[in-house]
Amino acid sequence: MADYREMWSQLGLDLELHDQLCAALPPLFEGAFLHQKDRPSGMDYFNMVIAEVHGLRIKELVDHKRNGGFVAGSFCVYVPEELVMALGGVMVGLCAGSQFWVPEGEKVLPRNLCPLIKAALGAKLSKTCPYFQSVDLVIAENTCDGKKKAWEEMGRLVPTHVMDLPNRKSPEGLALWRAEVRRLVSRLEGISGRKLTYDSLLSAIDKVEAKRQALRELYETRKADPVPISGIDALVASQIAFYDDPDRFTAMTAQLAQECAQRVQGGIGVFPKGTKRILLTGSPIVVPNWKVHHVIETTGAVVVVEENCTGTRYFTGSVDRSPRDLDGLLDALADRYIRDINCACFSPNDGRADDVVRLAREYKVDGVVDVTLSFCSTYQVEQGSLQRRMKAEGIPFLALETDYAPGDEGQMRTRIEAFLESL
Amino acid sequence: MADYREMWSQLGLDLELHDQLCAALPPLFEGAFLHQKDRPSGMDYFNMVIAEVHGLRIKELVDHKRNGGFVAGSFCVYVPEELVMALGGVMVGLCAGSQFWVPEGEKVLPRNLCPLIKAALGAKLSKTCPYFQSVDLVIAENTCDGKKKAWEEMGRLVPTHVMDLPNRKSPEGLALWRAEVRRLVSRLEGISGRKLTYDSLLSAIDKVEAKRQALRELYETRKADPVPISGIDALVASQIAFYDDPDRFTAMTAQLAQECAQRVQGGIGVFPKGTKRILLTGSPIVVPNWKVHHVIETTGAVVVVEENCTGTRYFTGSVDRSPRDLDGLLDALADRYIRDINCACFSPNDGRADDVVRLAREYKVDGVVDVTLSFCSTYQVEQGSLQRRMKAEGIPFLALETDYAPGDEGQMRTRIEAFLESL
Ligand code: SF4
Ligand code: SF4
Ligand code: SF4
Ligand code: SF4
Repeated sequence: MADYREMWSQLGLDLELHDQLCAALPPLFEGAFLHQKDRPSGMDYFNMVIAEVHGLRIKELVDHKRNGGFVAGSFCVYVPEELVMALGGVMVGLCAGSQFWVPEGEKVLPRNLCPLIKAALGAKLSKTCPYFQSVDLVIAENTCDGKKKAWEEMGRLVPTHVMDLPNRKSPEGLALWRAEVRRLVSRLEGISGRKLTYDSLLSAIDKVEAKRQALRELYETRKADPVPISGIDALVASQIAFYDDPDRFTAMTAQLAQECAQRVQGGIGVFPKGTKRILLTGSPIVVPNWKVHHVIETTGAVVVVEENCTGTRYFTGSVDRSPRDLDGLLDALADRYIRDINCACFSPNDGRADDVVRLAREYKVDGVVDVTLSFCSTYQVEQGSLQRRMKAEGIPFLALETDYAPGDEGQMRTRIEAFLESL
Repeated sequence: MADYREMWSQLGLDLELHDQLCAALPPLFEGAFLHQKDRPSGMDYFNMVIAEVHGLRIKELVDHKRNGGFVAGSFCVYVPEELVMALGGVMVGLCAGSQFWVPEGEKVLPRNLCPLIKAALGAKLSKTCPYFQSVDLVIAENTCDGKKKAWEEMGRLVPTHVMDLPNRKSPEGLALWRAEVRRLVSRLEGISGRKLTYDSLLSAIDKVEAKRQALRELYETRKADPVPISGIDALVASQIAFYDDPDRFTAMTAQLAQECAQRVQGGIGVFPKGTKRILLTGSPIVVPNWKVHHVIETTGAVVVVEENCTGTRYFTGSVDRSPRDLDGLLDALADRYIRDINCACFSPNDGRADDVVRLAREYKVDGVVDVTLSFCSTYQVEQGSLQRRMKAEGIPFLALETDYAPGDEGQMRTRIEAFLESL
């Protein structure tokens, strides 16, 4: 790896603490990924991205800023990355998937809060995330209580623009969201010194659609039995979608999808035909939170699809490109987000159970595992109705709660083993 | 007490379980209230209301329904009771303050959820709350995640109308809320078979304003030193405001306020002059959750004001009565709720800290105690900024977390003692 210490230091990182974080990642990655057999060769690129996660990509961001561009960070798939791109910015997902940051976050937030939120604050407070150190603006959102209120603290540390989401997909809710999309445009225009145009928006929409399409093609190959790629490999590709260069990511993912499609043609898989197939749903699973996939796939089953925000929810649905003026295109953009993403922050959110049922059939799964992060109330309360729906549809269902601490893997393995035996 | 068993049975109560609940209340009430010295004689009425909580008032509701009226229940001070009254209904707060209901609620909700929400579901599921058994409609609201999602379960048990609240007091948020107020009107018109008129709404606004005014007058007397009424007595009056007959409540509370005002004139108090004065803020404290007041007032201090929804937030601000048509009056009604109530479900919510500071000065308090219910994330995250603000204003601050289980009284007493000593 090149020496990035000077760059990190200029970004204001706490180098000593950052060394500790960097030392933890490679063994974690090796343990979760590199033991796997017959991985598609297209995964080499994604291995490299993880290895260079605080290096190469950060250098690109720094260069982008040096050339007058801006960087925005987000925590949710409702934040329209198209707007950032259209105004010459780079969007990065601020992953916050590591236990490393949780204790630091707990200094300013209650312990009884989802680890993702605590890690997000902790990453910023501890000055150990070079992405956080690079962003000119955090684009936050009022989705769950924890995030909504934590942004008040975040705003003290870094410029934070909060998008208000409605709680219901009503006409008034949609109107509020359309106004919020425009409010974000104004803010980004101010930061970039540019004006949003029809052409720049359309081309950003195309770019993001291409990225999503590549992921769809990859996921499509996971419908095969034997499955050409492990769940954890597909997951890491989805996770990387949030911060990699979009064009490069699209090309590399399309290439991986093609390789997987060829495998399917040749009947080549990474697990034997007939391996129990799992749909995973629930709270987002962000880098480097690979625990559940790792446990499932080392317990004799395979994850073939993720109905979550680091899975299908990220690439579901397309923006309607038919409007011929900027205003119409902005509405179409806003609408795609509210219409197509079914997050538990909405009530009712029956669309999610519909999605799970549809995906379970399409991917011919043997069971559904609903993974919620501790204290993620929206998904945890929704577990009741999801479970009822699965029962009505005759789909086996397992509920798991986890956080970022490593301590629960043994218990998780026991529960997953019992679940798999029952299938 | 009259024999209400036939009435309870007709309401579908689980009589055996209900007997257990009823057996628990009198010793709880005695322990918390009846040991107090020199209580205002006006408290006799409120003692009676508590003693008859499942009797007399329920009989009134049953009679009201028999005469063609309807009963609506709510869980939040944002639900405009004026609309229920204006259409001939009776509004009751579904208190859900007892640990008795928590285990039942945990059968359908995660344990990691605020006790108020678990108790609310548990009260309905266990068929032991005659108020719940009497309501024709629950008027719920999207305030916090737990409630928003729990209403999906509630809707399976009882007709539930959910009002959507915005997360921000923006123009779009207010527009959404104004539309929600009208959506509630339609629903209530459907239930009552009546049409909302300007006159009926204005008279309901007056009725509720009179109730709030009586509480304001009562609270006004608590600014005196010595304080003419204990905090726990004022609290129970506020709690009763949510389900008592409004006209009777107004008359009795005004009378109590008058008695207290006379005491102030005569320099008569329930605690010695110079007793440490506490402002209590945080999550709502609903019947029969008298724990924190009891502990504070048996540790040598007195609660002189509650900045919460069973305190000042209930009676703050008045509806603008100047609009001359129904539409204008509805907007004015909607506006009062969003404008005047500062709940942590909004972000930002700086108005609450402003209120706490203002009230702390007006009531000349020695310290602020912020009481949050376990897993109430909005108030718990807001604790950070509130604490900073108190520090900046030089107001001593203590944060307490509690739930409905009785086990934490000892620890709470220790912390409160230490806090009082530090003042
Ligand atoms: S789960 Fe909901 S709030 Fe979280 S990232 Fe996904 S859409 Fe956003
Ligand atoms: S996982 Fe749940 S609690 Fe955590 S940030 Fe996402 S929606 Fe909020
Ligand atoms: S604290 Fe907020 S959500 Fe709870 S009753 Fe009060 S206003 Fe409603
Ligand atoms: S106390 Fe907090 S968590 Fe509980 S219902 Fe009220 S706002 Fe929600």
